[in-house]
Amino acid sequence: MDDMRKIYDIIGIGNAIVDVISHESDDFIERHGLIKDSMALVDEETATGLYNDMHPAIQTSGGSAANTMAGIASLGGSAAYIGKVRNDHLGDLFAHDIEASGVDYLVDPATIGLPTARSMVLVTPDGARTMSTFLGASSTLYPHDIDAENISTAEYLYCEGYIWDVEITKEAIRLAMSIAKEANKKVCFTLSDSFCVHRHRQEWLELVAGPVDILFANKDEICALSGYESFDKAINWIRGQVGIACLTEAENGSTIVTADETIKVEAFPVDKVVDSTGAGDLYAAGFLHGLIKGHDLETCGKIGSLVAAKVVAQTGARFQTSLSEIVSNVFNL
Amino acid sequence: MDDMRKIYDIIGIGNAIVDVISHESDDFIERHGLIKDSMALVDEETATGLYNDMHPAIQTSGGSAANTMAGIASLGGSAAYIGKVRNDHLGDLFAHDIEASGVDYLVDPATIGLPTARSMVLVTPDGARTMSTFLGASSTLYPHDIDAENISTAEYLYCEGYIWDVEITKEAIRLAMSIAKEANKKVCFTLSDSFCVHRHRQEWLELVAGPVDILFANKDEICALSGYESFDKAINWIRGQVGIACLTEAENGSTIVTADETIKVEAFPVDKVVDSTGAGDLYAAGFLHGLIKGHDLETCGKIGSLVAAKVVAQTGARFQTSLSEIVSNVFNL
Repeated sequence: MDDMRKIYDIIGIGNAIVDVISHESDDFIERHGLIKDSMALVDEETATGLYNDMHPAIQTSGGSAANTMAGIASLGGSAAYIGKVRNDHLGDLFAHDIEASGVDYLVDPATIGLPTARSMVLVTPDGARTMSTFLGASSTLYPHDIDAENISTAEYLYCEGYIWDVEITKEAIRLAMSIAKEANKKVCFTLSDSFCVHRHRQEWLELVAGPVDILFANKDEICALSGYESFDKAINWIRGQVGIACLTEAENGSTIVTADETIKVEAFPVDKVVDSTGAGDLYAAGFLHGLIKGHDLETCGKIGSLVAAKVVAQTGARFQTSLSEIVSNVFNL
Repeated sequence: MDDMRKIYDIIGIGNAIVDVISHESDDFIERHGLIKDSMALVDEETATGLYNDMHPAIQTSGGSAANTMAGIASLGGSAAYIGKVRNDHLGDLFAHDIEASGVDYLVDPATIGLPTARSMVLVTPDGARTMSTFLGASSTLYPHDIDAENISTAEYLYCEGYIWDVEITKEAIRLAMSIAKEANKKVCFTLSDSFCVHRHRQEWLELVAGPVDILFANKDEICALSGYESFDKAINWIRGQVGIACLTEAENGSTIVTADETIKVEAFPVDKVVDSTGAGDLYAAGFLHGLIKGHDLETCGKIGSLVAAKVVAQTGARFQTSLSEIVSNVFNL
């Protein structure tokens, strides 16, 4: 019996990745045969080849669910993270940053095997980000890395779709979902990327019909999953399949869909989109922070929009200043 | 005979450092016994201890002379750099960034010994930066690393004062200066930091009376070197000792001092100082770019002010976008 065990508001699971971010032209994206604004998986050699051709870059922690957990902690929530790094320089960097954000990191680094994951993030002048990700050590998250005790007591489990790209990590995340459901906790899922949706559509259709309570997706992703080209049709299709669906449309705001409500939330104004990396991740952080604090869905959506607007006005997906101040300056919460 | 040998506009020598930048409170600076807005040398353990207490950070290339060379290359000049890293992750990062800026990196990484240098850069809410630097591999720049052929043909040699903190690297830089002088090239020197001036005052008095043609210093540094508390007295003291002295005063602009002229240049307006890291380095880049292009001293100072204003409006000392565009948008050069 451990009386001191912490009960988290939320635990996130995802690929633990360091972002290597540079600003490049549209021509660069084309020359390397990349698909703008999407994520492609690459091997280490391809990542290095791309890096060698990139402009001076900054290296900073990333990873979709990790960005969301860091955001929630920065907003004042108690968050933990499950994802795997190697005990190398980038692994130390990732572990430092997630812990320094106030997130408890529940997984030890691997001491053998692949190096820590990195994603070459190419930001074009329009602020879009195109990612080439070498999964490295993050692809070695095993079912035994899943912390059953913590997951069964946390109010929310947050899982990213990206992790579906590796068979073994998929198994880990399925285990985590079943633990959360058994303990009557809420399972959140983000569709991550429309190409990722296409790769896993059949399994994800079962997920949204099954364990997922709260779904995050952008317009392209929900259209890809539903099979409808029309966003309105996709909205009607998802309604009632999950308790809450948060569907984002960049500068056109978001739509929150429940069985009997459709709430349209406007985007928070942004002077200039510097780098859209983390927009969806931070929207989810703001929305879930609102839910954790017991706010109504519209307020949750507004917090999500504000935090997303702040992240796209900077380079990278992590904040160096406190989000709770930013939110309390705007809302009277 | 090598007909293909490149002749550089400028070659910089300095400590090859990766900056680890986070935003911290004034209280943090005080708690760690640091002196705000200055650079302290620390051992690896102290650097790691500080890092463990820091907020999430970004890692990006730094090093004073390296920042200046990257700036000059970004402005369209042909620049090379001499400074030592180790063949580790941070060394790869540094080498990538300097080459990606268009600077030729003339020194191979060390394959044994200390790891690549890193500086914990703490940015306080006023934008001041306080640095704790572990010199690591950068302190192993030997005289045999000095590329005599390139230095004897480059129009300018640019040396940072920071490198004076290690006996062996000081020897290397003295050798470089003597090669440049013998070839009738211009020697530029930056005083780097007022504490650094105090550590090496006697030798630097000899340098400015001797080989240095163009001197860069801020107000505190030139006052420390001259021994005068009054900036005006320091200006009169340095006049004629070096061909050109560029003396910066942050938001109060800069003063360019020659034997018979004193030119006051206003600072370029900045909305908000985000991080003053690299302000002096980039002022020097802009000024020297102007000289290389044959502009008059006032124009050189204005370019320096503009580029310095751009660097303090962002985090870190390296630019991800082309400086030549920024300059040609403001000046009709």
